[in-house]
Amino acid sequence: MSRVYNFSAGPAVLPEEVLREAADEMLDYQGSGMSVNEMSHRSKTFQGIIDAAETDLRSLMDIPDNYKVIFVQGGDSLVFASVFMNLALNKRADYIITGNWANKAYKEAEILGDPKIVASSKDKNFSYIPDCSDLPIRDDASYVYICENNTIYGTKFPELPNTKGHELVADQSSMFLSEPVDVTRYGLIHAGVQKNVGPAGVQIVIVREDLIPDDLPGVPTMLRFKTQADAGSLYNTPNCWGIYVCGKVFKWIAAQGGLQGMKEKNVEKAGILYDYLDSSDMFSSTVDPSCRSLMNVPFVTGSPDLDAEFVAAATKAGFVSLKGHRSVGGMRASIYNAMPREGCGQARRLHEGLRDQPLADTSTKNAAGCPDARVAKEIPCTRSTA
Amino acid sequence: MSRVYNFSAGPAVLPEEVLREAADEMLDYQGSGMSVNEMSHRSKTFQGIIDAAETDLRSLMDIPDNYKVIFVQGGDSLVFASVFMNLALNKRADYIITGNWANKAYKEAEILGDPKIVASSKDKNFSYIPDCSDLPIRDDASYVYICENNTIYGTKFPELPNTKGHELVADQSSMFLSEPVDVTRYGLIHAGVQKNVGPAGVQIVIVREDLIPDDLPGVPTMLRFKTQADAGSLYNTPNCWGIYVCGKVFKWIAAQGGLQGMKEKNVEKAGILYDYLDSSDMFSSTVDPSCRSLMNVPFVTGSPDLDAEFVAAATKAGFVSLKGHRSVGGMRASIYNAMPREGCGQARRLHEGLRDQPLADTSTKNAAGCPDARVAKEIPCTRSTA
Repeated sequence: MSRVYNFSAGPAVLPEEVLREAADEMLDYQGSGMSVNEMSHRSKTFQGIIDAAETDLRSLMDIPDNYKVIFVQGGDSLVFASVFMNLALNKRADYIITGNWANKAYKEAEILGDPKIVASSKDKNFSYIPDCSDLPIRDDASYVYICENNTIYGTKFPELPNTKGHELVADQSSMFLSEPVDVTRYGLIHAGVQKNVGPAGVQIVIVREDLIPDDLPGVPTMLRFKTQADAGSLYNTPNCWGIYVCGKVFKWIAAQGGLQGMKEKNVEKAGILYDYLDSSDMFSSTVDPSCRSLMNVPFVTGSPDLDAEFVAAATKAGFVSLKGHRSVGGMRASIYNAMPREGCGQARRLHEGLRDQPLADTSTKNAAGCPDARVAKEIPCTRSTA
Repeated sequence: MSRVYNFSAGPAVLPEEVLREAADEMLDYQGSGMSVNEMSHRSKTFQGIIDAAETDLRSLMDIPDNYKVIFVQGGDSLVFASVFMNLALNKRADYIITGNWANKAYKEAEILGDPKIVASSKDKNFSYIPDCSDLPIRDDASYVYICENNTIYGTKFPELPNTKGHELVADQSSMFLSEPVDVTRYGLIHAGVQKNVGPAGVQIVIVREDLIPDDLPGVPTMLRFKTQADAGSLYNTPNCWGIYVCGKVFKWIAAQGGLQGMKEKNVEKAGILYDYLDSSDMFSSTVDPSCRSLMNVPFVTGSPDLDAEFVAAATKAGFVSLKGHRSVGGMRASIYNAMPREGCGQARRLHEGLRDQPLADTSTKNAAGCPDARVAKEIPCTRSTA
């Protein structure tokens, strides 16, 4: 067995220790005689799993008691709707558009009511975060919505917007648990776990209790936050496996020094790449230095052909999912919590190797037309973990 | 490691072969160098997984080309809403109430429009399926809804209702893939996979194409069947792990002889229990013999105390999750596809052993007050699978 360096934007790399534990427990979870995949969500054993997950998450993020933590399903694309349905009772909420996901949240709100865009960085292909110090927020806006880290464009809000007293709602999917955040500054945080925390199929919603409506006439039961908030996320059968793996990742993060420890590691890891990109004559970052993400690092050579050759060579060498999103082109290294420092270091060596002998030097290309043989030979890219 | 006999109503027992494969592939799915838990849903590898799952399901159920198969999230409790939103454009649909789940579907429709109950077996605690040959279905009802197998009450429709030309919509969660069905008789079938097919967190919707509306103003994107039907269930990140395990179970069912093979096994397994219950002077079935489920077998002793003692003794002996739902009391053995025949045979031996020496004979009780020592000694109930 060999493992690649997985730079996928999500679903994404998970800690090997967590996967090994999950494999070991697959047929018999801690003496229960069954897999978590087979376990009643009404059992004491599963109750223990979900209780521990919530407790550990609260501890990691220092979530105050007046915030509910709920585990839901359906994708953030569904949460875009439920956020508006639950928090914009007057059908009005204001959105800051810093990329595809914020825009999707806004479009969903358009289906359901009267949202307004109060800032956007679309003019420069979302390569920066707009000045949010004095936005034309409507007096009756129920909240101001941001996507705090933009997976596709590699930006992150360097500071939270001035909401002028309105509630702040943030999609933190691609930065969730990557660094400390002050939960009290938000009315609601939501995150799909499939980027930094666990397998796809779970969304975590952290919402201040007083923002959860008691009644929502005409709104499906499962889209009312109250439904799962009152039921400890067990109104119906949850994604048990997903919550179980998330729980293991929460414990892994705690063992890494919690969110402060994660941030230090993530700053170091991202620094390895950004420092190189800023000094390279072949590759460059696409993002304004003031608002670069610690999690998603897009970069380009300036030549789509060369980009494609790099991605092919990297893939062959065991660095996978480096192709950039079509909205940006080029490459993107998503370096979530579970990407080891060594992965960033090896990726930098991959870049450096290519700079020393440009890909355009076709004399080294292999039969498939990719200059991968040299790269694969020089860099021990697949990690033997057998 | 030892495995119990898991009679949970769901999430429920899965084939050991499937779990072993999933464990083996946990760190490296078929040479990809990563777990399915870490894999981009946009990768060719995952596309292969979901394509194979759909193809195999279509083959198992002989699903015609004019039906879409979509994998969604959120629980059947959410599908209750989406079914009504997509198929009852005039806000009117008629429901046959044969238990809690049909009633929940009806209650969800009440939030959203004007449903009508056209039959019910509530008068006898849902222990039978009502005569559905001539129901007062409204002329403008968009569909007639049934829960075809009732997990809690252990009933199954012996024949489909006469819908008088209206579309039939069925929740098949607890009977999904347990026997052949004629898909063409339904407008829509939905099922949560966590009972008979896979881990919790995936619902499968099989819907005739012409019933999928092109536009649904005011309805969230994720609740429109068209969203996932047009995107091959990949509009957003799906529950990749759940679909992957389901795919393995589909192949396992095919290897068991497909749905006809499953039905034969399930008839035999259920027969072991029903034959015993009908001949026992200690235990009895709670369900009208004309409409007994092959999947869920509720039974009682007539004494709540004795029921509780039996459940405790059975649990100690490695027969777990036999406690009945509070709506019926007593016991319930859910014997889904993956419950081996030997599990039903051993369960019958457990019953017989207790009949020979009634539980009320406290002389055999152990320190915990349960008469389990004898049972546990006589029956090799936990299967060594190491």
